[in-house]
Amino acid sequence: MSFSAHIITLFPELFPGPLGASVIGRGMADGRWSLETTQLRDFATDRHRTVDDTPSGGGAGMVLKPDILAKAIDAVSPEGDLRPRLLMSPRGKPLTQARVHELAAGPGAVIVCGRFEGIDQRVIEARQLEEISIGDYVLAGGEVAAMVLLEAVVRLLPGVLGAAESHADESFENGLLEYPQYTRPQLFEGREIPEVLTSGDHGKVEKWRRAESEKLTRARRPDLLK
Amino acid sequence: MSFSAHIITLFPELFPGPLGASVIGRGMADGRWSLETTQLRDFATDRHRTVDDTPSGGGAGMVLKPDILAKAIDAVSPEGDLRPRLLMSPRGKPLTQARVHELAAGPGAVIVCGRFEGIDQRVIEARQLEEISIGDYVLAGGEVAAMVLLEAVVRLLPGVLGAAESHADESFENGLLEYPQYTRPQLFEGREIPEVLTSGDHGKVEKWRRAESEKLTRARRPDLLK
Repeated sequence: MSFSAHIITLFPELFPGPLGASVIGRGMADGRWSLETTQLRDFATDRHRTVDDTPSGGGAGMVLKPDILAKAIDAVSPEGDLRPRLLMSPRGKPLTQARVHELAAGPGAVIVCGRFEGIDQRVIEARQLEEISIGDYVLAGGEVAAMVLLEAVVRLLPGVLGAAESHADESFENGLLEYPQYTRPQLFEGREIPEVLTSGDHGKVEKWRRAESEKLTRARRPDLLK
Repeated sequence: MSFSAHIITLFPELFPGPLGASVIGRGMADGRWSLETTQLRDFATDRHRTVDDTPSGGGAGMVLKPDILAKAIDAVSPEGDLRPRLLMSPRGKPLTQARVHELAAGPGAVIVCGRFEGIDQRVIEARQLEEISIGDYVLAGGEVAAMVLLEAVVRLLPGVLGAAESHADESFENGLLEYPQYTRPQLFEGREIPEVLTSGDHGKVEKWRRAESEKLTRARRPDLLK
Protein backbone atom coordinates (compact mmCIF):
# COMPACT_ATOMS: atom_id res chain seq x y z
CA MET A 1 0.00 0.00 0.00
CA SER A 2 1.50 3.30 -1.03
CA PHE A 3 0.80 6.65 0.63
CA SER A 4 -2.53 7.99 -0.62
CA ALA A 5 -3.23 11.73 -0.54
CA HIS A 6 -6.59 13.28 -1.36
CA ILE A 7 -7.10 17.05 -1.52
CA ILE A 8 -10.46 18.83 -1.18
CA THR A 9 -10.09 22.24 -2.80
CA LEU A 10 -11.70 24.94 -4.92
CA PHE A 11 -8.56 24.86 -7.12
CA PRO A 12 -7.94 21.22 -8.10
CA GLU A 13 -6.17 22.42 -11.26
CA LEU A 14 -3.21 23.58 -9.11
CA PHE A 15 -2.31 19.94 -8.38
CA PRO A 16 0.04 18.18 -8.74
CA GLY A 17 1.85 21.41 -9.77
CA PRO A 18 5.20 21.46 -7.94
CA LEU A 19 4.42 18.00 -6.51
CA GLY A 20 4.75 16.62 -10.04
CA ALA A 21 8.40 17.74 -10.32
CA SER A 22 11.77 16.47 -9.16
CA VAL A 23 12.07 13.55 -6.74
CA ILE A 24 8.49 14.06 -5.48
CA GLY A 25 7.03 13.72 -8.98
CA ARG A 26 9.30 10.77 -9.70
CA GLY A 27 8.02 9.13 -6.51
CA MET A 28 4.47 9.50 -7.82
CA ALA A 29 5.40 8.09 -11.24
CA ASP A 30 7.04 5.14 -9.45
CA GLY A 31 3.87 4.44 -7.43
CA ARG A 32 5.38 5.40 -4.06
CA TRP A 33 2.44 7.72 -3.45
CA SER A 34 -0.75 8.84 -5.18
CA LEU A 35 -2.66 12.10 -5.32
CA GLU A 36 -6.34 12.69 -5.99
CA THR A 37 -8.26 15.94 -5.88
CA THR A 38 -11.93 16.73 -5.32
CA GLN A 39 -13.56 19.99 -6.36
CA LEU A 40 -15.51 21.22 -3.33
CA ARG A 41 -17.88 23.13 -5.60
CA ASP A 42 -19.18 19.83 -7.00
CA PHE A 43 -20.99 19.34 -3.68
CA ALA A 44 -22.92 22.63 -3.81
CA THR A 45 -26.63 22.22 -4.18
CA ASP A 46 -27.83 25.47 -5.79
CA ARG A 47 -27.50 26.46 -9.40
CA HIS A 48 -24.82 29.07 -8.55
CA ARG A 49 -22.72 26.30 -6.97
CA THR A 50 -22.38 28.36 -3.79
CA VAL A 51 -19.88 27.06 -1.22
CA ASP A 52 -19.64 30.02 1.15
CA ASP A 53 -21.78 32.52 3.04
CA THR A 54 -21.28 35.62 5.21
CA PRO A 55 -19.89 35.15 8.74
CA SER A 56 -22.44 34.93 11.56
CA GLY A 57 -22.01 37.97 13.76
CA GLY A 58 -20.62 40.04 10.89
CA GLY A 59 -17.10 40.77 9.73
CA ALA A 60 -15.05 40.67 6.55
CA GLY A 61 -14.78 37.82 4.10
CA MET A 62 -16.81 34.69 3.55
CA VAL A 63 -16.97 31.39 5.43
CA LEU A 64 -17.12 27.92 3.86
CA LYS A 65 -20.49 26.31 4.58
CA PRO A 66 -20.44 23.28 6.90
CA ASP A 67 -23.03 21.21 5.06
CA ILE A 68 -21.28 21.39 1.66
CA LEU A 69 -17.84 20.64 3.10
CA ALA A 70 -19.19 17.76 5.22
CA LYS A 71 -20.65 16.14 2.11
CA ALA A 72 -17.34 16.45 0.29
CA ILE A 73 -15.42 14.96 3.23
CA ASP A 74 -17.89 12.07 3.54
CA ALA A 75 -17.55 11.30 -0.15
CA VAL A 76 -13.75 11.35 -0.08
CA SER A 77 -13.25 9.74 3.31
CA PRO A 78 -16.12 7.42 4.26
CA GLU A 79 -16.27 5.61 7.59
CA GLY A 80 -13.43 3.13 7.86
CA ASP A 81 -10.96 5.32 5.97
CA LEU A 82 -7.93 5.26 8.25
CA ARG A 83 -6.27 8.34 6.78
CA PRO A 84 -6.11 11.39 9.07
CA ARG A 85 -8.26 14.34 7.98
CA LEU A 86 -6.18 17.48 7.98
CA LEU A 87 -7.24 21.10 7.62
CA MET A 88 -4.52 23.53 6.58
CA SER A 89 -5.10 26.56 8.81
CA PRO A 90 -3.00 29.24 10.56
CA ARG A 91 -4.99 28.40 13.72
CA GLY A 92 -3.64 24.87 13.71
CA LYS A 93 -0.83 23.11 15.52
CA PRO A 94 2.50 24.02 13.91
CA LEU A 95 3.78 21.31 11.58
CA THR A 96 7.01 19.74 12.79
CA GLN A 97 9.41 17.24 11.28
CA ALA A 98 8.24 14.76 13.94
CA ARG A 99 4.61 15.02 12.72
CA VAL A 100 5.87 14.74 9.13
CA HIS A 101 7.54 11.43 10.06
CA GLU A 102 4.31 10.16 11.68
CA LEU A 103 2.28 11.05 8.60
CA ALA A 104 4.83 9.39 6.32
CA ALA A 105 4.49 6.17 8.35
CA GLY A 106 0.69 6.18 7.89
CA PRO A 107 -1.69 5.27 5.07
CA GLY A 108 -1.99 8.78 3.63
CA ALA A 109 -3.95 11.95 4.32
CA VAL A 110 -7.19 13.66 3.39
CA ILE A 111 -6.42 17.38 3.23
CA VAL A 112 -9.00 20.16 3.25
CA CYS A 113 -7.78 23.47 1.82
CA GLY A 114 -9.50 26.54 3.22
CA ARG A 115 -10.13 29.76 1.29
CA PHE A 116 -11.87 33.00 2.18
CA GLU A 117 -12.12 33.96 5.85
CA GLY A 118 -12.33 30.41 7.16
CA ILE A 119 -14.44 27.33 7.63
CA ASP A 120 -17.52 26.83 9.78
CA GLN A 121 -16.32 25.60 13.17
CA ARG A 122 -19.04 22.95 13.37
CA VAL A 123 -17.71 20.92 10.45
CA ILE A 124 -14.21 21.04 11.96
CA GLU A 125 -15.67 19.48 15.11
CA ALA A 126 -18.19 17.12 13.50
CA ARG A 127 -15.62 15.65 11.10
CA GLN A 128 -12.74 15.84 13.61
CA LEU A 129 -10.45 17.76 11.31
CA GLU A 130 -6.89 18.11 12.60
CA GLU A 131 -5.91 21.74 12.04
CA ILE A 132 -2.29 22.04 10.93
CA SER A 133 -0.37 25.28 10.42
CA ILE A 134 2.78 25.38 8.32
CA GLY A 135 3.95 28.63 9.95
CA ASP A 136 3.06 31.90 11.66
CA TYR A 137 1.86 33.81 8.60
CA VAL A 138 -1.36 34.00 6.61
CA LEU A 139 -1.86 32.64 3.09
CA ALA A 140 -4.66 33.20 0.58
CA GLY A 141 -5.70 29.57 0.85
CA GLY A 142 -4.61 26.13 1.96
CA GLU A 143 -3.42 24.82 -1.40
CA VAL A 144 0.26 25.81 -1.20
CA ALA A 145 0.27 24.76 2.47
CA ALA A 146 -0.98 21.32 1.41
CA MET A 147 1.86 21.15 -1.13
CA VAL A 148 4.37 21.97 1.61
CA LEU A 149 3.00 19.23 3.85
CA LEU A 150 2.95 16.63 1.09
CA GLU A 151 6.44 17.51 -0.18
CA ALA A 152 7.82 17.14 3.35
CA VAL A 153 6.04 13.80 3.83
CA VAL A 154 6.66 12.26 0.42
CA ARG A 155 10.41 12.78 0.47
CA LEU A 156 10.53 10.54 3.56
CA LEU A 157 8.67 7.66 1.90
CA PRO A 158 10.85 4.61 1.20
CA GLY A 159 12.52 4.78 -2.20
CA VAL A 160 11.71 8.43 -2.94
CA LEU A 161 15.14 9.83 -2.13
CA GLY A 162 18.11 7.81 -3.33
CA ALA A 163 20.49 6.12 -0.88
CA ALA A 164 22.97 8.93 -1.50
CA GLU A 165 20.55 11.48 -0.06
CA SER A 166 20.32 10.51 3.58
CA HIS A 167 18.19 12.42 6.08
CA ALA A 168 20.18 11.96 9.22
CA ASP A 169 22.19 15.18 9.19
CA GLU A 170 19.39 17.50 8.13
CA SER A 171 18.00 20.38 10.11
CA PHE A 172 15.55 19.23 12.83
CA GLU A 173 16.39 15.52 12.46
CA ASN A 174 18.72 15.70 15.46
CA GLY A 175 17.12 18.74 17.08
CA LEU A 176 19.71 21.09 15.59
CA LEU A 177 20.05 23.24 12.47
CA GLU A 178 22.37 21.82 9.85
CA TYR A 179 26.05 22.75 9.80
CA PRO A 180 27.41 24.87 6.92
CA GLN A 181 28.20 23.08 3.68
CA TYR A 182 31.09 23.67 1.30
CA THR A 183 32.13 22.29 -2.06
CA ARG A 184 34.66 23.04 -4.77
CA PRO A 185 36.30 25.33 -5.80
CA GLN A 186 38.74 25.41 -2.90
CA LEU A 187 39.04 29.18 -3.25
CA PHE A 188 35.98 31.34 -3.98
CA GLU A 189 36.40 35.13 -4.07
CA GLY A 190 39.24 34.95 -1.56
CA ARG A 191 37.29 32.62 0.76
CA GLU A 192 38.77 29.18 1.50
CA ILE A 193 36.95 26.00 2.49
CA PRO A 194 37.62 25.50 6.26
CA GLU A 195 40.81 23.43 6.52
CA VAL A 196 39.32 20.75 8.74
CA LEU A 197 36.94 19.69 5.96
CA THR A 198 39.78 18.85 3.59
CA SER A 199 41.99 17.29 6.30
CA GLY A 200 40.73 13.78 5.65
CA ASP A 201 40.30 13.28 9.41
CA HIS A 202 36.72 12.06 9.72
CA GLY A 203 36.62 12.35 13.49
CA LYS A 204 37.67 15.99 13.33
CA VAL A 205 35.14 16.68 10.57
CA GLU A 206 32.34 15.17 12.69
CA LYS A 207 33.35 17.19 15.71
CA TRP A 208 33.57 20.44 13.75
CA ARG A 209 30.17 19.90 12.16
CA ARG A 210 28.53 19.13 15.47
CA ALA A 211 30.04 22.26 17.01
CA GLU A 212 28.92 24.40 14.06
CA SER A 213 25.39 22.97 14.27
CA GLU A 214 25.20 23.79 17.95
CA LYS A 215 26.62 27.28 17.45
CA LEU A 216 24.18 28.06 14.66
CA THR A 217 21.21 26.68 16.59
CA ARG A 218 22.13 28.69 19.69
CA ALA A 219 22.44 31.86 17.60
CA ARG A 220 19.34 31.49 15.46
CA ARG A 221 16.98 29.11 17.20
CA PRO A 222 17.64 28.93 20.93
CA ASP A 223 14.02 27.73 21.22
CA LEU A 224 15.04 24.39 19.65
CA LEU A 225 17.56 23.73 22.42
CA LYS A 226 14.99 23.80 25.21
CA MET B 1 6.46 50.78 -8.70
CA SER B 2 4.87 47.42 -8.09
CA PHE B 3 6.39 44.59 -6.06
CA SER B 4 8.98 42.77 -8.16
CA ALA B 5 9.89 39.14 -7.38
CA HIS B 6 12.69 37.24 -9.07
CA ILE B 7 13.31 33.53 -8.41
CA ILE B 8 16.60 31.72 -9.02
CA THR B 9 15.81 28.02 -9.36
CA LEU B 10 16.55 24.77 -11.14
CA PHE B 11 12.79 24.44 -11.77
CA PRO B 12 11.59 27.71 -13.35
CA GLU B 13 8.76 25.81 -15.05
CA LEU B 14 7.03 25.46 -11.65
CA PHE B 15 6.28 29.21 -11.62
CA PRO B 16 3.90 30.93 -11.41
CA GLY B 17 2.03 27.67 -10.69
CA PRO B 18 -0.25 28.31 -7.72
CA LEU B 19 0.83 31.96 -7.73
CA GLY B 20 -1.02 32.36 -11.03
CA ALA B 21 -4.38 31.43 -9.46
CA SER B 22 -7.03 33.17 -7.41
CA VAL B 23 -6.48 36.65 -5.96
CA ILE B 24 -2.68 36.27 -6.20
CA GLY B 25 -2.82 35.58 -9.94
CA ARG B 26 -5.35 38.38 -10.44
CA GLY B 27 -2.96 40.71 -8.63
CA MET B 28 -0.27 39.79 -11.13
CA ALA B 29 -2.59 40.29 -14.10
CA ASP B 30 -3.52 43.71 -12.64
CA GLY B 31 0.15 44.71 -12.39
CA ARG B 32 0.23 44.80 -8.58
CA TRP B 33 3.28 42.55 -8.64
CA SER B 34 5.52 40.83 -11.16
CA LEU B 35 7.40 37.55 -11.21
CA GLU B 36 10.51 36.58 -13.15
CA THR B 37 12.50 33.37 -12.98
CA THR B 38 16.10 32.54 -13.79
CA GLN B 39 17.36 29.03 -14.49
CA LEU B 40 20.44 28.54 -12.33
CA ARG B 41 21.78 25.95 -14.78
CA ASP B 42 22.18 28.67 -17.42
CA PHE B 43 25.18 29.92 -15.41
CA ALA B 44 27.05 26.62 -15.42
CA THR B 45 30.28 26.69 -17.41
CA ASP B 46 30.90 23.07 -18.41
CA ARG B 47 29.15 21.17 -21.15
CA HIS B 48 27.22 19.03 -18.62
CA ARG B 49 25.81 22.24 -17.13
CA THR B 50 26.94 21.13 -13.66
CA VAL B 51 25.65 23.24 -10.73
CA ASP B 52 26.61 21.04 -7.78
CA ASP B 53 29.47 19.01 -6.37
CA THR B 54 30.10 16.64 -3.44
CA PRO B 55 30.28 18.13 0.10
CA SER B 56 33.74 18.95 1.41
CA GLY B 57 34.44 16.64 4.35
CA GLY B 58 32.12 13.97 2.99
CA GLY B 59 28.49 13.15 3.61
CA ALA B 60 25.29 12.53 1.68
CA GLY B 61 23.86 14.62 -1.12
CA MET B 62 25.27 17.36 -3.28
CA VAL B 63 26.02 21.03 -2.59
CA LEU B 64 25.31 23.94 -4.95
CA LYS B 65 28.56 25.48 -6.14
CA PRO B 66 29.29 29.01 -4.92
CA ASP B 67 30.74 30.37 -8.16
CA ILE B 68 27.78 29.36 -10.35
CA LEU B 69 25.20 30.68 -7.87
CA ALA B 70 27.13 33.94 -7.35
CA LYS B 71 27.06 34.58 -11.10
CA ALA B 72 23.32 33.99 -11.23
CA ILE B 73 22.70 36.32 -8.27
CA ASP B 74 24.90 39.04 -9.79
CA ALA B 75 23.02 38.81 -13.09
CA VAL B 76 19.60 39.01 -11.42
CA SER B 77 20.46 41.50 -8.70
CA PRO B 78 23.34 43.81 -9.68
CA GLU B 79 24.77 46.41 -7.32
CA GLY B 80 22.14 49.04 -6.57
CA ASP B 81 19.23 46.59 -6.62
CA LEU B 82 17.41 47.43 -3.40
CA ARG B 83 15.49 44.19 -3.17
CA PRO B 84 16.47 41.88 -0.29
CA ARG B 85 18.14 38.63 -1.35
CA LEU B 86 16.43 35.73 0.34
CA LEU B 87 17.46 32.09 0.56
CA MET B 88 14.71 29.64 1.46
CA SER B 89 16.33 27.29 3.97
CA PRO B 90 15.31 25.32 7.07
CA ARG B 91 18.38 26.85 8.77
CA GLY B 92 16.92 30.33 8.37
CA LYS B 93 15.02 32.68 10.63
CA PRO B 94 11.39 31.56 10.86
CA LEU B 95 9.10 33.60 8.63
CA THR B 96 6.57 35.64 10.60
CA GLN B 97 3.61 37.77 9.61
CA ALA B 98 5.63 40.80 10.77
CA ARG B 99 8.43 40.02 8.27
CA VAL B 100 5.79 39.39 5.60
CA HIS B 101 4.46 42.93 6.21
CA GLU B 102 7.99 44.38 5.94
CA LEU B 103 8.62 42.59 2.66
CA ALA B 104 5.25 43.72 1.28
CA ALA B 105 6.21 47.34 2.04
CA GLY B 106 9.47 46.99 0.07
CA PRO B 107 10.42 46.96 -3.61
CA GLY B 108 10.31 43.18 -4.03
CA ALA B 109 12.56 40.19 -3.40
CA VAL B 110 15.22 38.10 -5.08
CA ILE B 111 14.67 34.54 -3.91
CA VAL B 112 17.20 31.71 -4.21
CA CYS B 113 15.69 28.22 -4.06
CA GLY B 114 18.03 25.53 -2.74
CA ARG B 115 17.99 21.88 -3.80
CA PHE B 116 20.12 18.90 -2.86
CA GLU B 117 21.91 18.97 0.48
CA GLY B 118 22.47 22.71 0.59
CA ILE B 119 24.39 25.68 -0.72
CA ASP B 120 28.04 26.54 -0.26
CA GLN B 121 28.27 28.71 2.86
CA ARG B 122 30.67 31.16 1.18
CA VAL B 123 28.12 32.40 -1.34
CA ILE B 124 25.57 32.90 1.45
CA GLU B 125 28.11 35.17 3.16
CA ALA B 126 29.60 36.85 0.08
CA ARG B 127 26.18 37.78 -1.34
CA GLN B 128 24.62 38.44 2.07
CA LEU B 129 21.71 36.10 1.56
CA GLU B 130 19.01 36.34 4.23
CA GLU B 131 18.12 32.76 5.14
CA ILE B 132 14.40 32.36 5.76
CA SER B 133 12.63 29.24 6.98
CA ILE B 134 8.90 28.76 6.48
CA GLY B 135 8.71 26.16 9.26
CA ASP B 136 10.43 23.42 11.25
CA TYR B 137 10.35 20.69 8.61
CA VAL B 138 12.47 19.77 5.60
CA LEU B 139 11.37 20.10 1.96
CA ALA B 140 12.92 18.70 -1.21
CA GLY B 141 13.75 22.22 -2.40
CA GLY B 142 13.01 25.90 -1.91
CA GLU B 143 10.46 26.31 -4.69
CA VAL B 144 7.28 25.64 -2.72
CA ALA B 145 8.71 27.63 0.18
CA ALA B 146 9.20 30.59 -2.19
CA MET B 147 5.56 30.23 -3.26
CA VAL B 148 4.47 30.33 0.38
CA LEU B 149 6.48 33.48 1.03
CA LEU B 150 5.21 35.24 -2.09
CA GLU B 151 1.59 34.26 -1.52
CA ALA B 152 1.76 35.65 2.02
CA VAL B 153 3.38 38.88 0.81
CA VAL B 154 1.33 39.48 -2.32
CA ARG B 155 -2.03 39.21 -0.57
CA LEU B 156 -0.99 42.21 1.56
CA LEU B 157 -0.16 44.42 -1.43
CA PRO B 158 -2.61 47.29 -1.95
CA GLY B 159 -5.51 46.32 -4.18
CA VAL B 160 -4.88 42.57 -4.18
CA LEU B 161 -7.58 41.65 -1.68
CA GLY B 162 -10.91 43.45 -2.03
CA ALA B 163 -12.12 45.89 0.60
CA ALA B 164 -14.47 43.18 1.86
CA GLU B 165 -11.53 40.97 2.81
CA SER B 166 -9.87 42.88 5.61
CA HIS B 167 -6.78 41.57 7.40
CA ALA B 168 -7.32 42.97 10.85
CA ASP B 169 -8.95 39.97 12.51
CA GLU B 170 -6.73 37.30 11.07
CA SER B 171 -4.47 34.97 12.98
CA PHE B 172 -1.18 36.67 14.03
CA GLU B 173 -2.34 40.20 13.03
CA ASN B 174 -3.19 40.96 16.67
CA GLY B 175 -0.89 38.36 18.21
CA LEU B 176 -3.72 35.86 18.62
CA LEU B 177 -5.18 32.98 16.65
CA GLU B 178 -8.45 33.78 14.95
CA TYR B 179 -11.77 33.07 16.68
CA PRO B 180 -14.06 30.33 15.30
CA GLN B 181 -16.23 31.24 12.33
CA TYR B 182 -19.81 30.20 11.61
CA THR B 183 -22.23 30.69 8.74
CA ARG B 184 -25.60 29.39 7.65
CA PRO B 185 -27.36 27.01 8.06
CA GLN B 186 -28.40 27.87 11.63
CA LEU B 187 -28.60 24.15 12.44
CA PHE B 188 -25.99 21.70 11.11
CA GLU B 189 -26.21 18.07 12.22
CA GLY B 190 -27.74 19.10 15.53
CA ARG B 191 -25.14 21.84 16.12
CA GLU B 192 -26.39 25.44 16.46
CA ILE B 193 -24.49 28.64 15.71
CA PRO B 194 -23.58 30.18 19.12
CA GLU B 195 -26.48 32.44 20.12
CA VAL B 196 -24.36 35.52 20.72
CA LEU B 197 -23.42 35.64 17.02
CA THR B 198 -27.03 35.98 15.90
CA SER B 199 -27.99 38.35 18.74
CA GLY B 200 -27.33 41.48 16.70
CA ASP B 201 -25.41 42.95 19.67
CA HIS B 202 -22.10 43.99 18.11
CA GLY B 203 -20.45 44.72 21.44
CA LYS B 204 -21.24 41.24 22.72
CA VAL B 205 -20.04 39.67 19.46
CA GLU B 206 -16.71 41.52 19.73
CA LYS B 207 -16.25 40.46 23.32
CA TRP B 208 -17.08 36.82 22.59
CA ARG B 209 -14.69 36.72 19.65
CA ARG B 210 -11.87 38.25 21.65
CA ALA B 211 -12.42 35.75 24.46
CA GLU B 212 -12.50 32.82 22.02
CA SER B 213 -9.30 34.04 20.35
CA GLU B 214 -7.55 34.25 23.69
CA LYS B 215 -8.84 30.85 24.79
CA LEU B 216 -7.72 29.19 21.56
CA THR B 217 -4.31 30.86 21.64
CA ARG B 218 -3.76 29.81 25.25
CA ALA B 219 -4.72 26.24 24.43
CA ARG B 220 -2.81 25.82 21.19
CA ARG B 221 -0.07 28.42 21.08
CA PRO B 222 0.86 29.68 24.53
CA ASP B 223 4.20 30.69 22.97
CA LEU B 224 2.40 33.51 21.11
CA LEU B 225 1.22 35.08 24.37
CA LYS B 226 4.74 35.63 25.74
